[in-house]
Amino acid sequence: MVDLIELRRDLHQHPEVGFTEFRTAGKVIELLKSFNIKVNYGKEVMDGASRRGVPDEEILEQAYERALKDGANPEIIEKMKGGYTAVIGEIEGNQPGPVVAFRFDMDALPILESTEEDHVPAAQNFRSKYKGNMHACGHDGHTTTGIGLAEKLSKGDFPGKVKLIFQPAEEGVRGAYSLVQKGILDDVDYLYCYHLGVGVPLGEFHGGTGGFLATTKLRADFTGTAAHAGASPEHGRNALLAAATATLNIHAIPRFSEADTRVNVGVLQSGAAANIIPEHAKLILETRSSSEKVNKELVKRVESIVKSSADMQGVTAEIEVIGGAIPINCDKELVDLAQQEAQHIPGFKTISQGSSDSALGSEDASYMIHRVQENGGKATYMVVGVDHPAPHHHPKFDIQEEALFNAVSLLERLARRTLSEKKVVVTK
Amino acid sequence: MVDLIELRRDLHQHPEVGFTEFRTAGKVIELLKSFNIKVNYGKEVMDGASRRGVPDEEILEQAYERALKDGANPEIIEKMKGGYTAVIGEIEGNQPGPVVAFRFDMDALPILESTEEDHVPAAQNFRSKYKGNMHACGHDGHTTTGIGLAEKLSKGDFPGKVKLIFQPAEEGVRGAYSLVQKGILDDVDYLYCYHLGVGVPLGEFHGGTGGFLATTKLRADFTGTAAHAGASPEHGRNALLAAATATLNIHAIPRFSEADTRVNVGVLQSGAAANIIPEHAKLILETRSSSEKVNKELVKRVESIVKSSADMQGVTAEIEVIGGAIPINCDKELVDLAQQEAQHIPGFKTISQGSSDSALGSEDASYMIHRVQENGGKATYMVVGVDHPAPHHHPKFDIQEEALFNAVSLLERLARRTLSEKKVVVTK
Amino acid sequence: MVDLIELRRDLHQHPEVGFTEFRTAGKVIELLKSFNIKVNYGKEVMDGASRRGVPDEEILEQAYERALKDGANPEIIEKMKGGYTAVIGEIEGNQPGPVVAFRFDMDALPILESTEEDHVPAAQNFRSKYKGNMHACGHDGHTTTGIGLAEKLSKGDFPGKVKLIFQPAEEGVRGAYSLVQKGILDDVDYLYCYHLGVGVPLGEFHGGTGGFLATTKLRADFTGTAAHAGASPEHGRNALLAAATATLNIHAIPRFSEADTRVNVGVLQSGAAANIIPEHAKLILETRSSSEKVNKELVKRVESIVKSSADMQGVTAEIEVIGGAIPINCDKELVDLAQQEAQHIPGFKTISQGSSDSALGSEDASYMIHRVQENGGKATYMVVGVDHPAPHHHPKFDIQEEALFNAVSLLERLARRTLSEKKVVVTK
Amino acid sequence: MVDLIELRRDLHQHPEVGFTEFRTAGKVIELLKSFNIKVNYGKEVMDGASRRGVPDEEILEQAYERALKDGANPEIIEKMKGGYTAVIGEIEGNQPGPVVAFRFDMDALPILESTEEDHVPAAQNFRSKYKGNMHACGHDGHTTTGIGLAEKLSKGDFPGKVKLIFQPAEEGVRGAYSLVQKGILDDVDYLYCYHLGVGVPLGEFHGGTGGFLATTKLRADFTGTAAHAGASPEHGRNALLAAATATLNIHAIPRFSEADTRVNVGVLQSGAAANIIPEHAKLILETRSSSEKVNKELVKRVESIVKSSADMQGVTAEIEVIGGAIPINCDKELVDLAQQEAQHIPGFKTISQGSSDSALGSEDASYMIHRVQENGGKATYMVVGVDHPAPHHHPKFDIQEEALFNAVSLLERLARRTLSEKKVVVTK
Repeated sequence: MVDLIELRRDLHQHPEVGFTEFRTAGKVIELLKSFNIKVNYGKEVMDGASRRGVPDEEILEQAYERALKDGANPEIIEKMKGGYTAVIGEIEGNQPGPVVAFRFDMDALPILESTEEDHVPAAQNFRSKYKGNMHACGHDGHTTTGIGLAEKLSKGDFPGKVKLIFQPAEEGVRGAYSLVQKGILDDVDYLYCYHLGVGVPLGEFHGGTGGFLATTKLRADFTGTAAHAGASPEHGRNALLAAATATLNIHAIPRFSEADTRVNVGVLQSGAAANIIPEHAKLILETRSSSEKVNKELVKRVESIVKSSADMQGVTAEIEVIGGAIPINCDKELVDLAQQEAQHIPGFKTISQGSSDSALGSEDASYMIHRVQENGGKATYMVVGVDHPAPHHHPKFDIQEEALFNAVSLLERLARRTLSEKKVVVTK
Repeated sequence: MVDLIELRRDLHQHPEVGFTEFRTAGKVIELLKSFNIKVNYGKEVMDGASRRGVPDEEILEQAYERALKDGANPEIIEKMKGGYTAVIGEIEGNQPGPVVAFRFDMDALPILESTEEDHVPAAQNFRSKYKGNMHACGHDGHTTTGIGLAEKLSKGDFPGKVKLIFQPAEEGVRGAYSLVQKGILDDVDYLYCYHLGVGVPLGEFHGGTGGFLATTKLRADFTGTAAHAGASPEHGRNALLAAATATLNIHAIPRFSEADTRVNVGVLQSGAAANIIPEHAKLILETRSSSEKVNKELVKRVESIVKSSADMQGVTAEIEVIGGAIPINCDKELVDLAQQEAQHIPGFKTISQGSSDSALGSEDASYMIHRVQENGGKATYMVVGVDHPAPHHHPKFDIQEEALFNAVSLLERLARRTLSEKKVVVTK
Repeated sequence: MVDLIELRRDLHQHPEVGFTEFRTAGKVIELLKSFNIKVNYGKEVMDGASRRGVPDEEILEQAYERALKDGANPEIIEKMKGGYTAVIGEIEGNQPGPVVAFRFDMDALPILESTEEDHVPAAQNFRSKYKGNMHACGHDGHTTTGIGLAEKLSKGDFPGKVKLIFQPAEEGVRGAYSLVQKGILDDVDYLYCYHLGVGVPLGEFHGGTGGFLATTKLRADFTGTAAHAGASPEHGRNALLAAATATLNIHAIPRFSEADTRVNVGVLQSGAAANIIPEHAKLILETRSSSEKVNKELVKRVESIVKSSADMQGVTAEIEVIGGAIPINCDKELVDLAQQEAQHIPGFKTISQGSSDSALGSEDASYMIHRVQENGGKATYMVVGVDHPAPHHHPKFDIQEEALFNAVSLLERLARRTLSEKKVVVTK
Repeated sequence: MVDLIELRRDLHQHPEVGFTEFRTAGKVIELLKSFNIKVNYGKEVMDGASRRGVPDEEILEQAYERALKDGANPEIIEKMKGGYTAVIGEIEGNQPGPVVAFRFDMDALPILESTEEDHVPAAQNFRSKYKGNMHACGHDGHTTTGIGLAEKLSKGDFPGKVKLIFQPAEEGVRGAYSLVQKGILDDVDYLYCYHLGVGVPLGEFHGGTGGFLATTKLRADFTGTAAHAGASPEHGRNALLAAATATLNIHAIPRFSEADTRVNVGVLQSGAAANIIPEHAKLILETRSSSEKVNKELVKRVESIVKSSADMQGVTAEIEVIGGAIPINCDKELVDLAQQEAQHIPGFKTISQGSSDSALGSEDASYMIHRVQENGGKATYMVVGVDHPAPHHHPKFDIQEEALFNAVSLLERLARRTLSEKKVVVTK
């Protein structure tokens, strides 16, 4: 039996951001193979052009080197080069039946983990080894759950087929779309997605959290003209001033009466030295809304602000979509089934459907769910509670590891029951 | 005889930014030694704590590695580790006499050099090998001039002593102060500094360009609180918004009626990802003025803007001085002498004192000149013209190499005449 | 019988903004008196110090003069001088019983009314005579309804007492609080408030629209130092730059996950001439939220932004609350009763409770409702639909006059039924 | 003899801003006529369309009414209606000779005068009666000087002709151009302009101050869409946000290396109420430069910023030139003559040419000087010192009245000497 706590802590110590999950995915592959599970990964399971917000070549290479240094198997991860870090495990059952899929995300965040004594990973010595990267959203736990589930189901003692989807780059909602476009979800009849935490306390389970916000992630590049800031500032065309003006005005986009909205300029990078008028500036930003239509309007306003801010300084601007997600609607059939099965897990004291109007962020599992539902399949998005001591994406975010065992047990039950009770519905 | 054109083109191909001039300084040392000139360098000639704006350890190390790869002598550059890249050559004359010093700066800029066909280094294949670094201010020519002069004077066939000062990190006005604080200028009776170009055409010579602007280079660090931009934006304290507001307002500091001013936020770096409220932001900026007093007032206003922009967002800010320079007043005695000697150089068609009220930027040679003058010595700052096809610090900046021979000949004449005619004046 | 259409059009032509409703209130008094209804008004019914955002003395006087020119009775409006423009009509019934109150707001907006042909008041020649003022929120209709109701109930043929509250300065949520503080609501057992339109179509009726947003209206005054913009700009301390920075940053206050929010800087006035650094700047702004707690946090953030924007420019700032409102919770008892009675009005085709979670703005009727409920009374806030061709506060806003007859009939029914069926509940 | 101190204090108490100098000009006319001097004024001496930045009709009318209330002669000022407030006095000499002109400006500023005890007009009870208007630039003294000079020369005991030009609207550099376009300067051989103060101390005289800055005064009008800030903020198009963004970015226009520059947004007015998204915004602003070419570039940048700020918010913008001036070059012939004559005035202790490179602001006398010089005539711009206790355009600006007598005596000497010694040079 794999020691799930050890595994989770190992992943926690080696956080890898989106499309650089070389060591993580490599480990997933090794473990799946150790359970005799069939594995596909890399370009086999991802459409390269549909990936969004892939890091620069140089960063991919550095991360790759780092993974090798940290014990990744070069023969395995060779196929992931360039940011192809998805892994699909498939377990064929012992007789015909439906395809049931589970999705686990693997990526970490560019956050510097807390060193304070009351932060458990710091106190118990499994804090991130990679300065500035951190599992601050529980994906280390998600990946661990996937491995725990894989081991439990590895014998194939069920009808149909189980698909275990280990997805890269959920942060920034960049990775799922590429798997969907490759067709990975096309034969799936039933899809279960889950997340730890998101404000739900330890001991509580939500069978079908809906809502989520439509979102678009954008990158804007401003290009002006450098000049010596002392000798001839008037010859410069200042890309940083354009970007700063855009940043303030993007945040000042009005609230909408018809739907919730969010805007955030998450990154601004500009300039080379104190005495040079900045020639380039880069913004990474996002819009969100509970309405897809309003989200599209937000994107239009951002584009207009970026363009006008550039014009104002005699600078040019280019804008690119680097990520996105849509709202989620859970199928009542699976929501009910999840709540029923959760009652068999002693760790779950409180069980409910969860909110259908969640504002907890955005999820690119939405693309997977949407594809399955388009094809006539069913899907749900569940939440397993933990008492996280700080919000998601915070330097002191943490989970309680007992929640992982609850999750594994539940998912196993859901797999077995769905496979035995439900029918093939997708005939694509 | 060293081939000065070959040397200049070699330096042009290997541009190194301030405090990372490992290969350049190494080459200077090798050449000076090949002329049998006594060399001091590294911590012997620089006060570590007085260096301003030294790059991070990691960047210093990468540059060091790069220099080694590009043929730097590891035994020589070992002593420069950590950013100690100044070199002092000393040539003792054959009888007592004054100390005459010449100053040459060696550093390049973080600018991407043009690839266009009408850019000579691109057309003639000696464009920068280091993507994003470039000699765009003529310091490759300055260093070459210093080597040319060294060879001419290497026999010591003169009274007194010649000091050849090869200075790092003039860009950002960061390096000179450290040599001054180490006492390198304390025995110098006469100091000649020179620059190529700065708007003066080929064939023209200025014997004593004064003015320059007082300047302060600053770094501001904003620290807020990260938060998930979708789930709880109100828990964030946005360091990027603070930095953007500061940037706009720093540029909006009023003109001053009593003196010329400049302000520039040259760098803004902030944020980690689209979906995180930015926790950190860094500004690199500068103020300049023809008046030291007004420059101090500009710095005060910048500090107030930075602090208030931070307060506005519930963010903290720290501000640090990372560079600076003062105005320059040339001594008429040396200005006249320079103009007289220039008349013997056929390449100089037009000779003048130059403006005493130049606004061409800032120069940390000002600290050296000020120190020499404080001690009773004399100094001047000369300009040798070139027809630069684009402004300094521009991707298409270039010099005509014939100007280097004019410069070497002139400096040799100035050395010999000053050493033979002038007296020891500094008795510190 | 008063011609309600003529009355409404007369009021529409003579729009008066908050606390300057001299002509309107004067007309209301004349009409109430013509029905032999007892009238109190002026300082008798308003607490002067509790009025918020009262215009300057000079503006009050100009408006007063204008009202006189437009036929207001000087003997009547004399008592309103200084902005005391509330009117209370009281009709004693023929036997003991409860007190039932109705509230009507009378003020117009500082909006320039459309002159386009498809705007009914323009086409039918009853467009505003006062350039820049307009009834763009239907209060001309509300006041007219109150007069129609007064005439119907003027005989006192019912038990108990009817109180008709004609309120000034609802726009900016400034007027109601002053009546509440004067005790006008203290004896009211049942209170009915109503609004035309707010997105509800003609023929539809809502018996108890709740929600509304908590709001605070603020005025910020920046004081810097004037200076000649050519001769000595550096001696200025620029109040306008402070106000512009505050404006952008107030609009950039983040969305809140826990509640809906709104921010708006509605007015910025600054400066005297092109060549003077602006010494003063005034902002008029508002915050809103579905949560009173979040609204208070918004106000704190605004205060911090105003203060820091001032500090940034060496300017001082003062901030003052000039208006406010709280959320509304309707009593089911009256909501049900209103829906029942509405069924008797042929003009109402669709009847519902309306949303309890409205985001249609803020209402200072909220203070009146809150006071009645505090005392044990009941209250509701109803909506009578109109097909307004443009949003409220838009130059082309308009109502259909037939809705006024629906409203009068309904309110009369509500008065009679409440007075006869309900008991005295407030014993203060 | 007119009591000049009394006259100056009367003018000081009745400050009238540009194009509303009804009472001032009326008084000038009455006095000139009392000296039997021929007077032309109103449309006879001004080209209406060439006036810049004329106030709105309503403001002109209010000022006109105010002038009548304050004793202006209605028969006289009738002809000035609509802002035609220039006055030309002509004194024919007793034999043929050249035309010598003197120019005096009459307008005040929209500044609230100090009430502090150490402010002489407050202490001695001749502070401005018009709240918010003030003679804070000495034009009350200039006008008084013109009257003093008129009385001295009224007998015509000299050859040639004297033209006394009383100009409106110098502030904002709006008025002079209109007189020039009407041809008032076309027959002038010699023109003397003068200013009190501008940093020159009492007892000092400058015979030919040059320099001044080229300037353009602009008005920008933004038009968006109003909307209710609570109910539907997204339907608004926010003119105030556009104006605030423009303001910050105009102030952030870079310094120019080739010339001095100034930018100032002197006025921003926007919005109607806290709860309305602002539909309109108005900016009044100026650019200045020691170079006409750079000033034109500044105007281009302002136009681009205004347009882009509008685009950014989906708002439209219009921009209009409302004032302007050019640099001044004094003729050495008159400068020398002025310095010679000044030596006869005991009040002048220190006499010099003054700076030819002044940065004290802008002057639309520049257009008059330019026209005279174009025609072959000569002109100079002189300064008579006063110890002004606060800068020009400051609430505590003041002059010493003894300077007026110095000025009158000097101008009389200049008139007589020029008329007797100099020849007719303009033959247009």
